[in-house]
Amino acid sequence: AKTFKIAVLPGDGIGPEVMAEAIRVLDAIGRKYDAVFDGTFANVGGAGIDHEGKALPQTTIDICKASDAILFGSVGGPKWESLPPDEQPERGALLPLRKIFGLYANLRPAIIFPSLTGASSLKEEVISGGFNVLVIRELTGGIYFAQPKGIEGQGRERVGFDTMRYSVPEIERITHVAFQAARKRGKKVCSIDKANVLSSSVLWREVVTAIAKEYPDVELSHMYVDNAAMQLVRWPKQFDVILCENMFGDILSDEAAMLTGSLGMLPSASLAEGTFGMYEPSGGSAPDIAGQGIANPIAQILSAGMMLKFSCGMVEAADAIDTAVATVLEQGYRTRDIFQNKPGEKLVNTKEMGDAIIAAL
Amino acid sequence: AKTFKIAVLPGDGIGPEVMAEAIRVLDAIGRKYDAVFDGTFANVGGAGIDHEGKALPQTTIDICKASDAILFGSVGGPKWESLPPDEQPERGALLPLRKIFGLYANLRPAIIFPSLTGASSLKEEVISGGFNVLVIRELTGGIYFAQPKGIEGQGRERVGFDTMRYSVPEIERITHVAFQAARKRGKKVCSIDKANVLSSSVLWREVVTAIAKEYPDVELSHMYVDNAAMQLVRWPKQFDVILCENMFGDILSDEAAMLTGSLGMLPSASLAEGTFGMYEPSGGSAPDIAGQGIANPIAQILSAGMMLKFSCGMVEAADAIDTAVATVLEQGYRTRDIFQNKPGEKLVNTKEMGDAIIAAL
Ligand SMILES: CC(C)[C@H](C(=O)O)[C@@H](O)C(=O)O
Ligand SMILES: CC(C)[C@H](C(=O)O)[C@@H](O)C(=O)O
Repeated sequence: AKTFKIAVLPGDGIGPEVMAEAIRVLDAIGRKYDAVFDGTFANVGGAGIDHEGKALPQTTIDICKASDAILFGSVGGPKWESLPPDEQPERGALLPLRKIFGLYANLRPAIIFPSLTGASSLKEEVISGGFNVLVIRELTGGIYFAQPKGIEGQGRERVGFDTMRYSVPEIERITHVAFQAARKRGKKVCSIDKANVLSSSVLWREVVTAIAKEYPDVELSHMYVDNAAMQLVRWPKQFDVILCENMFGDILSDEAAMLTGSLGMLPSASLAEGTFGMYEPSGGSAPDIAGQGIANPIAQILSAGMMLKFSCGMVEAADAIDTAVATVLEQGYRTRDIFQNKPGEKLVNTKEMGDAIIAAL
Repeated sequence: AKTFKIAVLPGDGIGPEVMAEAIRVLDAIGRKYDAVFDGTFANVGGAGIDHEGKALPQTTIDICKASDAILFGSVGGPKWESLPPDEQPERGALLPLRKIFGLYANLRPAIIFPSLTGASSLKEEVISGGFNVLVIRELTGGIYFAQPKGIEGQGRERVGFDTMRYSVPEIERITHVAFQAARKRGKKVCSIDKANVLSSSVLWREVVTAIAKEYPDVELSHMYVDNAAMQLVRWPKQFDVILCENMFGDILSDEAAMLTGSLGMLPSASLAEGTFGMYEPSGGSAPDIAGQGIANPIAQILSAGMMLKFSCGMVEAADAIDTAVATVLEQGYRTRDIFQNKPGEKLVNTKEMGDAIIAAL
């Protein structure tokens, strides 16, 4: 049997509960597909702060370094909100993880499951039949990390500044990720920029256009970020793969996720060059329902599925997870967040949803 | 009678047609409220390029300088899309106008008129009764204008960069605009930033928080821009005034406008210190329907109303325009873009809509 070393970082809030179900699903997959997932647990986020004094403790980094992939839960909560921004669970864990492990490609599918269109804020006529958009966000460059960045001066003379910067190779590699993904799906890439205002966007658009020539089977379009924020609302089905720099991707991937109405359902992958990656649900740590065993584990389970695909090369097993999730939704299993009290729906808790998915596998 | 000198810049596409109706409405207002609007027409955008070689010709700048306000139509169209970004009608006209005239405060109401909720992509239950959000966007600072900005190097060594920068006084003055506006409406300001990543946002949040102390009657909250993009979709009614730096405001004001489904209905104001301002519809130049006399003039007419309020001190006349627009909508008058073929609706063209609004005055 193939063995994969997984750094398991459950984090805060509902993180540990939904992670438990993802681990059970991985065990079931391991039995079925003859693989061993050797998980090592580590603290991150608020749990890192409470137990080891930092959102991303060195022991956690070391465990991640010794692993083939990171399975991440979710971090944050009211307890740590008054800490200085860079010590807070989310920022203090996520940004260094991205930088240390070179996780430059963030894949965030925004999918409406046909059985859950009712949960979207969008009208039935706008989303009928569901939609399936993949936002690909550059994750280690741009205004998040470039220097100079800071606050200078005293009192009312102070000035705060940040730098948005992209090099050609940085744009090239994320563009390849987008086109390769588009090839396997709807064969369209819409690249987002603000080339009418930003110089980094002028370069972005030029490089994306050049790389697109290597993918004549994929259609490229360009859209300004303000227009994209509108078009997502107006007609999300026009999009297949959306390619963004870091900050635009932060904003648009969240907008797209919320448009599905199924935040608790959406996984994400943050990939390095090679096969290393970090996998985490798109939603937050939901401290309000933590510890009650009622959270929806599907986003965490689908994140484990993305891990199988990108870090373990187990595409068939990954597809089996996607299919199992679709099956249990069709069978009517609903955690509280997606329960609409319609005929045929069965209200289940976190563990029961895990059981149903394992049974469907 | 009081006389106001108005620089009238109809621009491209439907600009001239809808501007004609706004001028007729201003004439009617002048007769009723004993004021004279002395309009001087000037070229801008594609019309500027075609007639005087530039999106913002010097003669146009001079006419604006000699005026009390600018009434702007809309610019752009396929004819000029292959020009270099800074020569294009929109960017080439709007950014210099903002800078030359110090138009630092952009007010963009996103209103669903109760009779038009059907036009929104959002579900009836999310928007029932309409909503009314005012986005206040800083318009002359941030990543739009700060230096350094450019592309350096050769070939694959090239790097594109932009600078996001805010000083304390820049943040202070736009914050006052937001709080003063909130005082006259729902008494809530939600300030948008990305203080978990950007230093300019850390300063932004600190200064906004300090200024808020001068407005104890107004409630302040802070929200990260990615979350704001989600919350607008989820529950737009939670917002009253949204305060943003330049780029976040560009994105969120467009998202909010599209959520109303009534882009052709929304005006905007871009204000300088003192009473000078520029007033323009939020929608575009709609080249596809230009010249047919069927465009919706309401956004342009409401923009003239904002001009009366902010540049002419004619608050009562401005309110009269808002009321007249609401009246004709209740009476069922609809241009093609808002026609839903429901009982009681009367399909009208641009001029007939102007007539109806003048009659309602
Ligand atoms: C917590 C924050 C730094 C982070 C980001 O902005 O990237 C988050 O919003 C995300 O999208 O993962
Ligand atoms: C045309 C462009 C430069 C402009 C902007 O980004 O400000 C436009 O999108 C707007 O919002 O007025």
